[in-house]
Amino acid sequence: MTSTARARAVVLVSGGLDSATALAMAQAAGYQCHALAVDYGQRHDAELRAARRVADAAGVPLRVVGIDLRAIGGSALTDDIAVPEGPTEGIPVTYVPARNTILLALAMAHAEVLGAGDIFIGVNAIDYSGYPDCRPEFIRAFEVMANRATRAAVEGREMRIHTPLIEFTKAEIIRRGMALGVDYALTVSCYQADGEGRACGRCDSCRIRRAGFEAAGIDDPTPYRRD
Amino acid sequence: MTSTARARAVVLVSGGLDSATALAMAQAAGYQCHALAVDYGQRHDAELRAARRVADAAGVPLRVVGIDLRAIGGSALTDDIAVPEGPTEGIPVTYVPARNTILLALAMAHAEVLGAGDIFIGVNAIDYSGYPDCRPEFIRAFEVMANRATRAAVEGREMRIHTPLIEFTKAEIIRRGMALGVDYALTVSCYQADGEGRACGRCDSCRIRRAGFEAAGIDDPTPYRRD
Repeated sequence: MTSTARARAVVLVSGGLDSATALAMAQAAGYQCHALAVDYGQRHDAELRAARRVADAAGVPLRVVGIDLRAIGGSALTDDIAVPEGPTEGIPVTYVPARNTILLALAMAHAEVLGAGDIFIGVNAIDYSGYPDCRPEFIRAFEVMANRATRAAVEGREMRIHTPLIEFTKAEIIRRGMALGVDYALTVSCYQADGEGRACGRCDSCRIRRAGFEAAGIDDPTPYRRD
Repeated sequence: MTSTARARAVVLVSGGLDSATALAMAQAAGYQCHALAVDYGQRHDAELRAARRVADAAGVPLRVVGIDLRAIGGSALTDDIAVPEGPTEGIPVTYVPARNTILLALAMAHAEVLGAGDIFIGVNAIDYSGYPDCRPEFIRAFEVMANRATRAAVEGREMRIHTPLIEFTKAEIIRRGMALGVDYALTVSCYQADGEGRACGRCDSCRIRRAGFEAAGIDDPTPYRRD
């Protein structure tokens, strides 16, 4: 390795606010980043287009892996189940079974092919909407498993799962991203964005995002649709 | 639960000899089985057709999830890399990065949707061709992770990963399967089977399979092609 070679990292990007921030933080930490987006049969492709915009703005390559999670079912994000527009309790219907396990498994595969030992995922245990696979105990268990799973592990190279946002509030995420120059107008968080990526302003994800900009004292750049 | 309700299990089937045996063992253990096959961009679809034959013969439903691992690359099984036809040392080029992690993650998602707490995978640590994700320490670490990942885990229902073949030699697998009535002529193990599912007889997987029938003292029912 020459003195100018930087360690490679795979960064999972969804097109949303959190993963755009995680990408900026991975770059700020000096990693040569490779973005990975997963097309898991989301009900709209606005977020995949947003992922492309985020990767392009950061100047990093983006790989998109297609996986048909509709064959598995069980989520309002992949099935014809209505997305709730009010506050919900417990694990919401927008939970995609095993989603972060699947995303991290694909990131692990991509990292192995690239010779990267670092994976970034923008999960968040504070404003996490009640998803079990956003909790620190899940991430640590995944990391242990990853270090038993791969050719790299057998050869003694460790795999690290970075969750730079895990203890941040949404407002803290936004402030950190703004400081790093993230353009949040490029991102889509809404569970039911329209074809132009405009947000509904009412779903769980929109409400958390909007409240985050308010708490951060930053003007919300999200394009909302009028309906 | 009534006295006739049986516990559900998800069984990963590949169309090969091992997973057909694992399915028969799961059924013999009393589980109501749901087969899951993953179309990960294998170079031929002979094994997916074999997975269908195996599930049909066992009388269980089969779900096929498509995932384009060619977007990840890194394996002779998904890329245009030649499959070796002689003995190899170390981890072979047919290793698919993170494959069992991805397969088990999908099985976990399917189990969660079905309300199943048991997953069967036909991995084997003896004649395992040097794949890191066939080792018991990987499976145990995956199980720990699974029990942090899911809605079921949060609600206190445990997920168990069963590897009934893990300590078997290929000959023991074959003897057990024959005793349970598995028709191995339905299965395809070859890495480069032709359109009719006929095996090459020369690749790593063919050599291990053929030696297993010899060691078991059972006539090999594999259809080989003549070329």
